[in-house]
Amino acid sequence: MTAAQLQVFALGGFPLVEPGDDLARLIGDSLLANDLTLVDGDVLVLAQKIVSKAEDRYVDLKQVEPTAEAQALATAVDKDPRIVSVILDESNTVVRHCPGVLIVEHRLGYVMANAGIDASNIEHAGSQRGDELVERVLLLPKNPDQFAADLAQQLQQVHGVKVAIIINDSVGRAWRNGTTGLALGAAGLPALDDRRGDKDLYGRTLQVTEVAVADQLASAAALLQGEGGEGKPVVLIRGYQYDSAADRCNGVSALLRDKERDLFR
Amino acid sequence: MTAAQLQVFALGGFPLVEPGDDLARLIGDSLLANDLTLVDGDVLVLAQKIVSKAEDRYVDLKQVEPTAEAQALATAVDKDPRIVSVILDESNTVVRHCPGVLIVEHRLGYVMANAGIDASNIEHAGSQRGDELVERVLLLPKNPDQFAADLAQQLQQVHGVKVAIIINDSVGRAWRNGTTGLALGAAGLPALDDRRGDKDLYGRTLQVTEVAVADQLASAAALLQGEGGEGKPVVLIRGYQYDSAADRCNGVSALLRDKERDLFR
Repeated sequence: MTAAQLQVFALGGFPLVEPGDDLARLIGDSLLANDLTLVDGDVLVLAQKIVSKAEDRYVDLKQVEPTAEAQALATAVDKDPRIVSVILDESNTVVRHCPGVLIVEHRLGYVMANAGIDASNIEHAGSQRGDELVERVLLLPKNPDQFAADLAQQLQQVHGVKVAIIINDSVGRAWRNGTTGLALGAAGLPALDDRRGDKDLYGRTLQVTEVAVADQLASAAALLQGEGGEGKPVVLIRGYQYDSAADRCNGVSALLRDKERDLFR
Repeated sequence: MTAAQLQVFALGGFPLVEPGDDLARLIGDSLLANDLTLVDGDVLVLAQKIVSKAEDRYVDLKQVEPTAEAQALATAVDKDPRIVSVILDESNTVVRHCPGVLIVEHRLGYVMANAGIDASNIEHAGSQRGDELVERVLLLPKNPDQFAADLAQQLQQVHGVKVAIIINDSVGRAWRNGTTGLALGAAGLPALDDRRGDKDLYGRTLQVTEVAVADQLASAAALLQGEGGEGKPVVLIRGYQYDSAADRCNGVSALLRDKERDLFR
């Protein structure tokens, strides 16, 4: 008997990404340096931060004039009013707040703390770059589902293989401590896999089984990406079986519960 | 350069588990049949259902007399009053409910739908077993952290290796569609890994970085366990680097946010 198997590789030596960098090329170079060759069905998971950096999603805090609303909220949550102002600009609505915590619905529909903006692994308030004091934060990518779809297409053109792409982040959750990997964007696979027609072990049709495949892959990748200084933003997952037919593939937008059906907003 | 690597194996041919079965022995037999040998640092992830079945956590619905409270709630959520009665018996409190949905705080502190009780992959209301109509549901394990610790010890005695154990389930979440793997019990590793002393890429000390390692491993395993009829309840994860020192290891209890610090209860 042979056990079903996944392999999860974190690419070593990935360079620090700068605005305008071509991620398809950087990934191709890094795969080569890591002695890996893409095959059909591979899943590449990219940390959100490298996509945001390539897209130059930096905001210079010195250019931010906080609104009165942002000032008041900043006092309530004990954060920099300029950062709160940027968070509000990126959000549809504030879901919950209390001292130290600001949970919003991001403009793309994710419910998360600080609209996904944090100051770790970017040059942050107080860094010196040459003689200039750098005070900037990094927003989430413009449209992660679209970025993933475009990248999958570029990789197919260059490498001649059909791969799936996930853009992930590490975020907190309701009810549980600690962060887990979460998908912000996906292409080339069913991000939300609807198995409601399948049978269970006893032959009964499953009642409620939609699986958040992209979030599970995002968490698997996060195990190797690590936090902090580990610097392994690109992970290759090989061996995951999925249906890549176009009508089964959906983006992370399919993972976002409608507000009307959500009991926690 | 060599990419950091995880391997994730789902054991094939795992038998259907019956009350009283010795899971340490079944796992040992199955590893052998799958040509796998445990090594120090391996993580074994067990689907909750096989632990519950081994512990005989079945409840015969014919023996359940729903309380008036359960009757009223069953009407509100449109479920079998006997099942609602069993859910309430397993719960500290009802967190939210609406037609079709009953979200509770389980007696062990997990916030989840239906106290983790469902009717898939067990013999369910309406099954025939011989001539007898079987109507039963399956509760979560008695104490998953303890079960995990005991199993790790048994495996160490028999196989001479130190492994970590996670007991997982597939559950829904706030704000997102689809289920993901979640840890109900863990032993032998930091289920919640506190990296708040680490440095980020730019040398700054990370402010908020506790990682829900056990939940990420639970999701990685769920990718291969599948839902429905796939029947691969035991997954081996090899290559994940963790600190197994006793004072770093904690159970899933460490993953449960205190109610006082939770904005969504």
